[in-house]
Amino acid sequence: VIIELSYTDLKTGEPAITHLHRALELGKHVVTTNKGPIALKYPELKALAEKNNVEIGAEGTVMSGTPSLRMAQELLAAAHIRKIQGIVNGTTNYILTQMEAGATYADALQDAQAKGYAEADPTGDVEGFDAAGKVVIMANLLMGQALTLANVDRKGITALTPADIAAAKAAGERWKLIGRVEIIGNEVAASVQPTRLPIHHPLASVGGATNAITFSTDLLGDVTLVGPGAGRVETGYAIVGDLLAIHRKQQKS
Amino acid sequence: VIIELSYTDLKTGEPAITHLHRALELGKHVVTTNKGPIALKYPELKALAEKNNVEIGAEGTVMSGTPSLRMAQELLAAAHIRKIQGIVNGTTNYILTQMEAGATYADALQDAQAKGYAEADPTGDVEGFDAAGKVVIMANLLMGQALTLANVDRKGITALTPADIAAAKAAGERWKLIGRVEIIGNEVAASVQPTRLPIHHPLASVGGATNAITFSTDLLGDVTLVGPGAGRVETGYAIVGDLLAIHRKQQKS
Repeated sequence: VIIELSYTDLKTGEPAITHLHRALELGKHVVTTNKGPIALKYPELKALAEKNNVEIGAEGTVMSGTPSLRMAQELLAAAHIRKIQGIVNGTTNYILTQMEAGATYADALQDAQAKGYAEADPTGDVEGFDAAGKVVIMANLLMGQALTLANVDRKGITALTPADIAAAKAAGERWKLIGRVEIIGNEVAASVQPTRLPIHHPLASVGGATNAITFSTDLLGDVTLVGPGAGRVETGYAIVGDLLAIHRKQQKS
Repeated sequence: VIIELSYTDLKTGEPAITHLHRALELGKHVVTTNKGPIALKYPELKALAEKNNVEIGAEGTVMSGTPSLRMAQELLAAAHIRKIQGIVNGTTNYILTQMEAGATYADALQDAQAKGYAEADPTGDVEGFDAAGKVVIMANLLMGQALTLANVDRKGITALTPADIAAAKAAGERWKLIGRVEIIGNEVAASVQPTRLPIHHPLASVGGATNAITFSTDLLGDVTLVGPGAGRVETGYAIVGDLLAIHRKQQKS
């Protein structure tokens, strides 16, 4: 098994795409926590993996070690997933939670940077690129689509004002940056949008850097998974989980 | 595979225990949605299954088809689960939700019976026996314990008054019937108790007949699964999920 842990580049996917290609061609299973290659080239990488009879583990690319991808792929396998929506970026959720508590956007961002949630250049998080990458990953891994980042109707949280937050609060609602993909007939709609949710909506109570995803299925209705969305140990757990899953597939009981 | 679907009897576990014993002795995998044999005899049945190199699927005994047991067993396998707590009985959660909206206990129970959530004799639900059975199942399947129903410190919701509900509401809290098992040192504590939760607690926002379980782990912190806890189609899904899981274990990729 080759474990690919280079830094995410959502523009080129490199050097990870080259690493994964080479590993798969050599008949090695791969595990990665890098969103770049999975968001940009999954259909191609998956075909290469199947041709070489090996596996791709990418659990760490969405919700870190919280087993969102494998739960959907393995445990919801007999249900048809029609819609996926969730809070898949902890940095923006932390900022929105702080703003609801009274902070300005600038103060909340600075606080998120001080806590290590947001990077010095926060664009990838606050403009929704990170969430859009995860939406593409979920659409392609869990719903058999072949989306690209350009297919995601994306808007970040930078335009939200304290007045917007207060207006939602007064109406018993709460702003969340919601990543969403839905199959409607033969169409697939994918978006990342600041969304006002009723306070009792299951995703509305998810605060701080926690992530949550709701899978809407035909047979089970809505199944929601809530857990950590980032962190060194948590992302490391994703790698162990993928290794165990690959091992299980090689073992006959 | 023998699929055992007889009616739950938490006192004797029969006739399901006899059915499962016989099937396992004959070297058949078994799948069941019947809480009786799993709550009362799991350690013994598991030993018999291992001796005969076959599997026991019991996903439908907790949260119906929502894959709570397999998520914990397979996808959280590399994390140590230290505590499990949740809302595992939909009938009582529906009654509490109705009482918070202003209904009396008697009216809410009648409503639950009219909707088919509660049985004519509601004792098993409202006195916490059903939830206690699920706590034992989770302790024994997911935490390697060998608890019995007598080990669960159990209290139902029948003593809760509208005044109790109102007092919690005034304090920004909400009553939930919480099933819980926790390992503390060499001790294991198991309970089913009406519990006041802060309104922002992840389990507090779970309303109506929905169920939710929070797994507290060493490496991932808290992972919460929310989904249906009952229903014909949903429980049927648990059987299909168990059959697929048994199939996967027999297949080498």
